[in-house]
Amino acid sequence: MKANLKNLKKLLLEMQKIESISSLLHWDQETFMPENGGEIRSKEIAYLSSLHHQKQVSDEFKKELGKFVNIKNGEILSNEFIDDNKRFLERVWKDFHYANSLPEKFVKELSKLTSTSQMKWVKAKEQNDFSLFEPYLKKMVDMKKTEADYYGYSTNRYDALLEQFEPGITTEKLDDLFGGLKSRLIKLIGKIKNSSVKNKIVEGKFAEDEQWKFGMKIIKDMGFDLNSGRQDKSAHPFTISFHPSDVRLTTRVHENNFLSSLFASIHEAGHGIYEQGLLKENFGSPFGQAASFGIHESQSRLWENQIGRSKNFWKKYLPILKDHFPQFKTMKLDEYFKTINVVKPSLIRIEADEVTYSLHIMLRYDIENMLINEDLPVKDLPKIWNEKMREYFDIVPDSDANGVLQDVHWSMGALGYFPSYALGNFYAAQFFQKASEEIDDFDKKIQNGELLTLKKWLNENVHKYGRKYLPDELIKKVVGSSMSVEPFMKYLEEKYGEIYDL
Amino acid sequence: MKANLKNLKKLLLEMQKIESISSLLHWDQETFMPENGGEIRSKEIAYLSSLHHQKQVSDEFKKELGKFVNIKNGEILSNEFIDDNKRFLERVWKDFHYANSLPEKFVKELSKLTSTSQMKWVKAKEQNDFSLFEPYLKKMVDMKKTEADYYGYSTNRYDALLEQFEPGITTEKLDDLFGGLKSRLIKLIGKIKNSSVKNKIVEGKFAEDEQWKFGMKIIKDMGFDLNSGRQDKSAHPFTISFHPSDVRLTTRVHENNFLSSLFASIHEAGHGIYEQGLLKENFGSPFGQAASFGIHESQSRLWENQIGRSKNFWKKYLPILKDHFPQFKTMKLDEYFKTINVVKPSLIRIEADEVTYSLHIMLRYDIENMLINEDLPVKDLPKIWNEKMREYFDIVPDSDANGVLQDVHWSMGALGYFPSYALGNFYAAQFFQKASEEIDDFDKKIQNGELLTLKKWLNENVHKYGRKYLPDELIKKVVGSSMSVEPFMKYLEEKYGEIYDL
Repeated sequence: MKANLKNLKKLLLEMQKIESISSLLHWDQETFMPENGGEIRSKEIAYLSSLHHQKQVSDEFKKELGKFVNIKNGEILSNEFIDDNKRFLERVWKDFHYANSLPEKFVKELSKLTSTSQMKWVKAKEQNDFSLFEPYLKKMVDMKKTEADYYGYSTNRYDALLEQFEPGITTEKLDDLFGGLKSRLIKLIGKIKNSSVKNKIVEGKFAEDEQWKFGMKIIKDMGFDLNSGRQDKSAHPFTISFHPSDVRLTTRVHENNFLSSLFASIHEAGHGIYEQGLLKENFGSPFGQAASFGIHESQSRLWENQIGRSKNFWKKYLPILKDHFPQFKTMKLDEYFKTINVVKPSLIRIEADEVTYSLHIMLRYDIENMLINEDLPVKDLPKIWNEKMREYFDIVPDSDANGVLQDVHWSMGALGYFPSYALGNFYAAQFFQKASEEIDDFDKKIQNGELLTLKKWLNENVHKYGRKYLPDELIKKVVGSSMSVEPFMKYLEEKYGEIYDL
Repeated sequence: MKANLKNLKKLLLEMQKIESISSLLHWDQETFMPENGGEIRSKEIAYLSSLHHQKQVSDEFKKELGKFVNIKNGEILSNEFIDDNKRFLERVWKDFHYANSLPEKFVKELSKLTSTSQMKWVKAKEQNDFSLFEPYLKKMVDMKKTEADYYGYSTNRYDALLEQFEPGITTEKLDDLFGGLKSRLIKLIGKIKNSSVKNKIVEGKFAEDEQWKFGMKIIKDMGFDLNSGRQDKSAHPFTISFHPSDVRLTTRVHENNFLSSLFASIHEAGHGIYEQGLLKENFGSPFGQAASFGIHESQSRLWENQIGRSKNFWKKYLPILKDHFPQFKTMKLDEYFKTINVVKPSLIRIEADEVTYSLHIMLRYDIENMLINEDLPVKDLPKIWNEKMREYFDIVPDSDANGVLQDVHWSMGALGYFPSYALGNFYAAQFFQKASEEIDDFDKKIQNGELLTLKKWLNENVHKYGRKYLPDELIKKVVGSSMSVEPFMKYLEEKYGEIYDL
């Protein structure tokens, strides 16, 4: 029976190739595609996506998977399949089940709505007019409810959406994780606000090619393999992988915002190193895919924050930075460390510091829960958003563009995605704590720029498993205990206690 | 019955999308792909190619095409189909017939051989050792003979190969075209050799970014639409199209060879303008494809030679060139014109001037004919090559790397391709003669840099028809008479008569 998994794996490999090809089309669209290339490009992406779906729910696939799994309920048909093989079949069935649970007509309609809705969102944000987006978002929320019903859930409809991004995570678990965190974060932010220490962000002009060179040096030192990947420019930084041997990063470079470009590069390289660290021999298998969106985000956050915004890291790199930008010449390490760690409640999630960031997520989580479970009318969103902003941050957006319209996710139908960003912060702190315990002379190594030690630790402890373990299983395996916000809060309280003299 | 063509067109569109996607994979491979990305990339390209083949010979396609055409012999089943519809069905059947005439096992074997054989050729060329390539080339020649037999031909086996590149062209026609040309070219070259005028190629260093800027200006002025295409760098210049709204050119830039980069840009932009000039509404139909390899080449040659190496063109652009490269400051137009039109028999086809170029093609044509029809043993190729070089050019290669091993085509199985290059020269001269007659004040317009007039003329007279007409039909339609070498010879004799004072 074991030998027969080969046929199933062959079908999976074919689907993975289709996805990988589609990723190249996406990458090119965001980097080099000429303006007029978009129309045919989106048709080709849609074609590949429908081809993938056809293969996923084909009779051939059902027959092959059905040899090992009851395709209706996911039950493994033989005790012969234990450990890895069992996990393998569970993951394969899950993907099949998700694709198969949605009627083809529904999938097509959702895909059409997504494309229209994104365009409407762009326009609404540009014109600061929520009403242009509202009817499409209303339809989207309705369809996501239907999707959740098709997919199924035990107690909470929102769980069906969460499951797509963070397997095993439920509303109950999130309520538990977020519960205590909210008041502790708000308390910490209050203390920082009242601190007599006032730090300022570095301002000035930074030559674009020098920014590029410095960023490239850092990602290379981190261990991002430029023979198996590259970095380009795009409007919004992202990472996309075709295969562990071909992973593409993008960043943006703004002359007057050096930190934005640098931290985007480090962040994306964190994602990229994860993708390069998946095992080539698992390409096509779920074990060759990332564990979850949250685990992925933990890798980018860990490099960006725990490393990139640490004093240890800049001990090595500040002198090098000074070679690129003479304006830092007289700046001391302590002062520089403070300028890159300014905490300030702000309107825009993606520009938030690491203390306030998770509150932006909790706000969105509250709202998504209300939309999916409590039938909050979409037209009330701007009002609710602003009320929540006052509650979490004590500030109110000057416009919907800087408020409820700021993120692309809802227009894409990615409801249930946001919590993964916060989970990424928590996981990152857990992994980082463990790595710093397990790696000898960890601080010293980071101070010397020996970043590869950390990269190898992550390869060995996180990356190589791919999707074999559920996020919480992986955390337990690596750090010895379940997912928790404690290491994250401890990290924040210590770091910002020092910076703001609390 | 007419409405039913819709289903056939839908299937064709799907195949065209697959080809277009595959083209992006190729483009990326030659431009930006990191070193280690090649392994999975070639598997993905092979997957798409096999998917395309499956669709082309599927029962669904046969059934649909079979409604209108006897799929065994290409006979159109109804008198209802005349003019465009008849031509459409003829072209569609031809592509089907080619794919369907080859057994799947043969296609796979050929594709495998092609990939091995190319690697072996690279090695053989590097090491200047024909014997490393010989067994693979022998196998390739055998397979191409078999392919010709599968495809079918009436009198000459080589015709079956020619037909894939230049529909309607036969050995008989080529013998006729090449016949008188050979002696006339050799005579002209002899006169030039004996001329007292001695012109020299420009040498020196040319900053790469200035070369790039100047080249970009020229291709823009030619009318290559940079909103529907782009130019990048690659080892070997090429043009690839995903759709008329997304056409990619590449060039190379060598600091010490300014002409190589510039003429590559102009040449590729000629190809690119053709691709952009195909009608968008014909995407998916043969009418949305180029007429032939020879017609394609005529577009690149016309821009490169008849325009790019003309005195009229440089009247406008030499002063601009001087802004980019001060080393030309004191050079007069007449002198510059001569330096870019030096004629000298040489070993390498792709570096040949426009007078000697066609002889390189005739040499290869002779050899391919002997390989396919006269069972010339592959092991004798180096000897034959060198004998032919003496016959055509009165020079003998110093090595096989600079002789029989110089071109990639045979290793790719592209036997029958070379004649298209020479035909491109002939067609270019025919089109150019006609354009200069039909466009008012043609010389003056080119002298003023009004290149768009010519671009529009080509759009209107050549590009928009796509593959609707066979090459010879298209020539007749445009210039009023059949394909001929006369305009080409006339052009050469006049131009080089002036340059070399003959």
